[in-house]
Amino acid sequence: MIGRIPIQDIHPTVDCGRYPAKAAAGETFEIAATVFREGHDAVAAGAVLTGPDGVRGPLLRMRELAPGTDRWGVEVTLPTEGEWHFRIEAWSDPIATWLHDAAIKIPRDIDAELMCEEGARLFERAARAVRPADCGGAAAKAATGKASAGKTVAARTTAGKTVSARMAGRQKAAEAPACGHRAALLSVAARLRDQELDPRARFAVTQLPETAEMLRAHPLRDLVTRSSRRSIRVDRRRALYGSWYEFFPRSEGAIVEHDTAPKSGNFATAAKRLPAIAKMGFDVVYLPPIHPIGHSFRKGPNNTLTPEPYDPGSPWAIGSEDGGHDAIHPDLGTFEDFDAFVAKARELGMEIALDLALQCAPDHPWVKEHPEWFNIRADGSIAYAENPPKKYQDIYPLNFDKDPEGIYAEVKRVVRLWMDHGVRIFRVDNPHTKPVAFWERLIADINSTDPDVLFLAEAFTRPAMMHMLGKIGFQQSYTYFTWRNTRQEVEEYLDELSHETSHFLRPNVFVNTPDILNEYLQLGGVAAFRIRAIIAAMAMPTWGVYSGYELAENVPVRPGSEEYLDSEKYQYRPRDWAEAEREGRSLAPLITQLNLFRRAHPALQELRNLRFHSVDHPDLVCFSKRLPGAYDTATRRHGLGDVVLTVVNLDPHNTHEGIVSLNMPALGLDWQAEFVVDDELSGESYRWREHNYVRLDPHIHPAHIFTLRATANQR
Amino acid sequence: MIGRIPIQDIHPTVDCGRYPAKAAAGETFEIAATVFREGHDAVAAGAVLTGPDGVRGPLLRMRELAPGTDRWGVEVTLPTEGEWHFRIEAWSDPIATWLHDAAIKIPRDIDAELMCEEGARLFERAARAVRPADCGGAAAKAATGKASAGKTVAARTTAGKTVSARMAGRQKAAEAPACGHRAALLSVAARLRDQELDPRARFAVTQLPETAEMLRAHPLRDLVTRSSRRSIRVDRRRALYGSWYEFFPRSEGAIVEHDTAPKSGNFATAAKRLPAIAKMGFDVVYLPPIHPIGHSFRKGPNNTLTPEPYDPGSPWAIGSEDGGHDAIHPDLGTFEDFDAFVAKARELGMEIALDLALQCAPDHPWVKEHPEWFNIRADGSIAYAENPPKKYQDIYPLNFDKDPEGIYAEVKRVVRLWMDHGVRIFRVDNPHTKPVAFWERLIADINSTDPDVLFLAEAFTRPAMMHMLGKIGFQQSYTYFTWRNTRQEVEEYLDELSHETSHFLRPNVFVNTPDILNEYLQLGGVAAFRIRAIIAAMAMPTWGVYSGYELAENVPVRPGSEEYLDSEKYQYRPRDWAEAEREGRSLAPLITQLNLFRRAHPALQELRNLRFHSVDHPDLVCFSKRLPGAYDTATRRHGLGDVVLTVVNLDPHNTHEGIVSLNMPALGLDWQAEFVVDDELSGESYRWREHNYVRLDPHIHPAHIFTLRATANQR
Repeated sequence: MIGRIPIQDIHPTVDCGRYPAKAAAGETFEIAATVFREGHDAVAAGAVLTGPDGVRGPLLRMRELAPGTDRWGVEVTLPTEGEWHFRIEAWSDPIATWLHDAAIKIPRDIDAELMCEEGARLFERAARAVRPADCGGAAAKAATGKASAGKTVAARTTAGKTVSARMAGRQKAAEAPACGHRAALLSVAARLRDQELDPRARFAVTQLPETAEMLRAHPLRDLVTRSSRRSIRVDRRRALYGSWYEFFPRSEGAIVEHDTAPKSGNFATAAKRLPAIAKMGFDVVYLPPIHPIGHSFRKGPNNTLTPEPYDPGSPWAIGSEDGGHDAIHPDLGTFEDFDAFVAKARELGMEIALDLALQCAPDHPWVKEHPEWFNIRADGSIAYAENPPKKYQDIYPLNFDKDPEGIYAEVKRVVRLWMDHGVRIFRVDNPHTKPVAFWERLIADINSTDPDVLFLAEAFTRPAMMHMLGKIGFQQSYTYFTWRNTRQEVEEYLDELSHETSHFLRPNVFVNTPDILNEYLQLGGVAAFRIRAIIAAMAMPTWGVYSGYELAENVPVRPGSEEYLDSEKYQYRPRDWAEAEREGRSLAPLITQLNLFRRAHPALQELRNLRFHSVDHPDLVCFSKRLPGAYDTATRRHGLGDVVLTVVNLDPHNTHEGIVSLNMPALGLDWQAEFVVDDELSGESYRWREHNYVRLDPHIHPAHIFTLRATANQR
Repeated sequence: MIGRIPIQDIHPTVDCGRYPAKAAAGETFEIAATVFREGHDAVAAGAVLTGPDGVRGPLLRMRELAPGTDRWGVEVTLPTEGEWHFRIEAWSDPIATWLHDAAIKIPRDIDAELMCEEGARLFERAARAVRPADCGGAAAKAATGKASAGKTVAARTTAGKTVSARMAGRQKAAEAPACGHRAALLSVAARLRDQELDPRARFAVTQLPETAEMLRAHPLRDLVTRSSRRSIRVDRRRALYGSWYEFFPRSEGAIVEHDTAPKSGNFATAAKRLPAIAKMGFDVVYLPPIHPIGHSFRKGPNNTLTPEPYDPGSPWAIGSEDGGHDAIHPDLGTFEDFDAFVAKARELGMEIALDLALQCAPDHPWVKEHPEWFNIRADGSIAYAENPPKKYQDIYPLNFDKDPEGIYAEVKRVVRLWMDHGVRIFRVDNPHTKPVAFWERLIADINSTDPDVLFLAEAFTRPAMMHMLGKIGFQQSYTYFTWRNTRQEVEEYLDELSHETSHFLRPNVFVNTPDILNEYLQLGGVAAFRIRAIIAAMAMPTWGVYSGYELAENVPVRPGSEEYLDSEKYQYRPRDWAEAEREGRSLAPLITQLNLFRRAHPALQELRNLRFHSVDHPDLVCFSKRLPGAYDTATRRHGLGDVVLTVVNLDPHNTHEGIVSLNMPALGLDWQAEFVVDDELSGESYRWREHNYVRLDPHIHPAHIFTLRATANQR
């Protein structure tokens, strides 16, 4: 049976609660529900969170999000990793009902004396409801939240540091003075009965801010109804926020000269590139597979079928006589070399993400040891990959249904092997070509002992599968971002990612990959590379770059293809980074600027706070990210918060101008506010208000990246 | 853990399966789910229904609803009332995968011999999978459905008669020739191995329609995955389809003359009106409360506070010394008179719906017997209804939280009393002012023994509550229809009612009520009354009229009010129907025409088949309702189906013209089809195709109501 007060459509909920919703430590997000009751009496709602330690937090009061919707919400910030739970509580608020009626009746002298007496009785009940425990000062732990409209939320300082959690105005207020509150509530009751005074004068006491504050701290709750429980998996912060850099270690330090066999780079030479990557402000270095590469049907340069003996082959054709997924390509070095590489990255403040591509070259040891793991054709041969009439004879797909337990155990062994060598992020290649249930089991299994290990789904497929992989456990997902280039595409898709799906799918927006050189980049020149980097880095908390982007490499293997000419997948691509920088050809300075700006601005490290603003030119897009100021327990004040406002010209060829019309409340501003914006890219400052003129030349600065200088009008 | 093949977002599902979805006996609706698998192999899906008798039906094959959506669906028609259940099954279809690959590879001579051998093995497996039971002819019962694109569905003949259920083409095919099929599948395998033939020639056998038919009947299914179970409550047909007429029995036969006390009508005089109501084609006669009316604070004409002694008061101020909810107003007659009235209606093919208004006049027996059921104020008085500063002193609301069991038992007794007197439909007054849980319990309780009893929720409140009342059991709901008058309002709202919410909220669209005389009717003259009746009756399966609508009564008590002048709620309103008809002032002929047309056209008796079409004039709206032809087990053919196409001019004052652009597939037609439309209202016929000119003068015929004359092009 339904509860006394209906509580519906609880958010976040994933598949009716079958899977936990996603959040990251310190992330701010909204808990909401539809709450309503019969008749006209006042209703109220709140959320109660239980931490991974089983400790139940305080009741976080929700506010009605918009009149007439019956939708209630509260923004929360969960400080610690692990499995959290929450319930919604709804209740009838007899004092709010009385206040509404009394405010109309007492001034009109309708039942004035009776109304005062009834109010007095309610305040007496409220006083009785102040729990003795509250007098001891035990209060509000674990989670934080604040529901009052226009005020700020969050458990984080503007510097991005998460603060511990016994906070939020009203919870604090509830601590020490509880017994004082009981007395104060009784004194309101006494005042309401004071026959010496006119009922209007008596009623006035109920309108004092102190009375409202007391009632917020000690609401009188009738018909309290609790929802069923929902769960939220809180991951480490890197699941939400990070800047990724992908490169092929074999290219760094490779020697490629005319008429001699090229020489592979290795972990030692590749490690020399790490300081430059770190200097650009990247947090994660993602490596394509580092395992031995098969010889049979090896692909030559530009995916040809006739390689030279020295051609290195695709790293995704995994396995040779030198080993499989648990081995390192001899050209790259040994496990010791890998460990040193990982250590060097860590020293520079970066971690390594490794590719997990569950497929085999014909020379992979599994083919001999476990032929039963593959599809056997009617002629007894092992089936290679096909997309008829195309053949991929260098790849044998696994058949996960033939020996599910055997394959599962081996993959788990491989994953744990790399975990033991410092890999705590796996970029899973084509997870959508393996059973979803396999991933659900594997991720749950690994995370049960190592909750810090993150899995990124490289599934470029239809939405249903992409969403499912997020729901069943992948902490991050590749997206359609590279194919969303027009204003409508950018607005609709990033809005979907930051709001509709953000509770189960965390986007990792790469601006390019070894497989994807989008036409926009091919045709748009350097400006296109700048534009896309700015959008990704400013709009999304996790973005990625595949090396070569700094050099604006933009030549496809043929027109209409998204493959690179001379793709690094099939050959060494050493690059002269230093010369490019000397010649001013490199985008490294912009990327550095973007990444360091992201580190300085916690608003950019959040997903769900993206808001688009209107611009009256179809090639201009404007968006903001805002993190309201955190409540500081020492000063008992809310900080100014952090706001970044970006305006981008999406046309890489032409200058455009237009009027930006800001959604001022989304910036924490009054509609009439005037303020100063400082442009991070040009260094210029402007005085702005709701409507503002912009003009962007893509060959100078294709965007404004504004911080807002605090003014008295800023909320 | 997730199943081997993910099955998501199953429709219909209400609140994650917490409540059954709604359907009516013989209603056609879609079961759908998102089904997808890893990789590129073919996937397929079906629905399996279990009837109220626990008998499991056949696998109803679903089709992919639109490319790339992974959304699968099948239209079903459940013939019998009661609690049905269904599951979705999804499977890998290895023969479909093979057919796809073979069709590319064999003509290009890629692995041709090997492909043939692999195909042969699959057809052998399919032959082995033909269950021996299938050879006996035991098949396909209980439910019906058909998934093939463009073909028809449904378990109903064009005449609207529901047919019994061992039907739908492929289920039929599965019966007798199953063992023949096994041999035939083996012969396909043999053909594929026939070395005498070129592989292309061998492959051709798999492309024969017979082979496809066999595979549909006996799919080879790998990795079969079943969803959890969903439930559907199938109500009697009147829950879905019916024409309602509301009138005050006290007005019919009342004698109101100047300077004398008026005399009330009664059940005997009111019964004289029943034949005219039946003649207009109504199915349900809904009576406002028929109980004794309180005297204290009785309202006079036009809701005044100073009634004359002979003023009859509002029927919703229930209860006097003559009794309460279990009594009949002495002016109306006795229980014998009521029984005779009900019997007379039944004789005329109509049933009676009674008002259930759970509130009391101060004189209600409950007030004395159960003062604890009401709110007691601080001065000891019982609280009357208020909406400060307004007072409703003639009404005491019940407080359902004070003696929930006591009130519940009494209400149940009252409901069962009226059920015993032939009332099987209750129109519940203001259910949204009583606890939702109360209704959930009451309806479940009543329906557990009397599943034919229907409850209509008169909740004019916010969407969350309206939806909730539908979910927890109300079989029908009043809607916002009267306030949706512009084209955008009509299109958006009726689309929502017929699609988004139709699985849990069944609309009953009244064009007026004693409380609602919409401004559109006040200002639009007789044409407005015609227009609204046509929209309601043609677009929605259940519509209602409050008496006086026939006379286009349109004078409000004051400008800006939706209350009638001289509202029948507070006084007798005898009407001279015969004179109005004689003078040609009555809309009864139109209403009769609409209702009889609804009876003749099963497409109009469905809710979920409403489709809007484009018109290039903002005051013209066009919609169609289509029921695909039923499968007839005798002829083994699909009928032509039933289509009604309506075009309405929403402007009651001016003639408008425009071009209607039809969504031809929604009419079951090819885009190029030409056909003849016959106008039910004007008697004229036109030759139509996709784009058509219309011109509608609201003072002649404000609408076209077209039937489509079958042509060869009609699907």
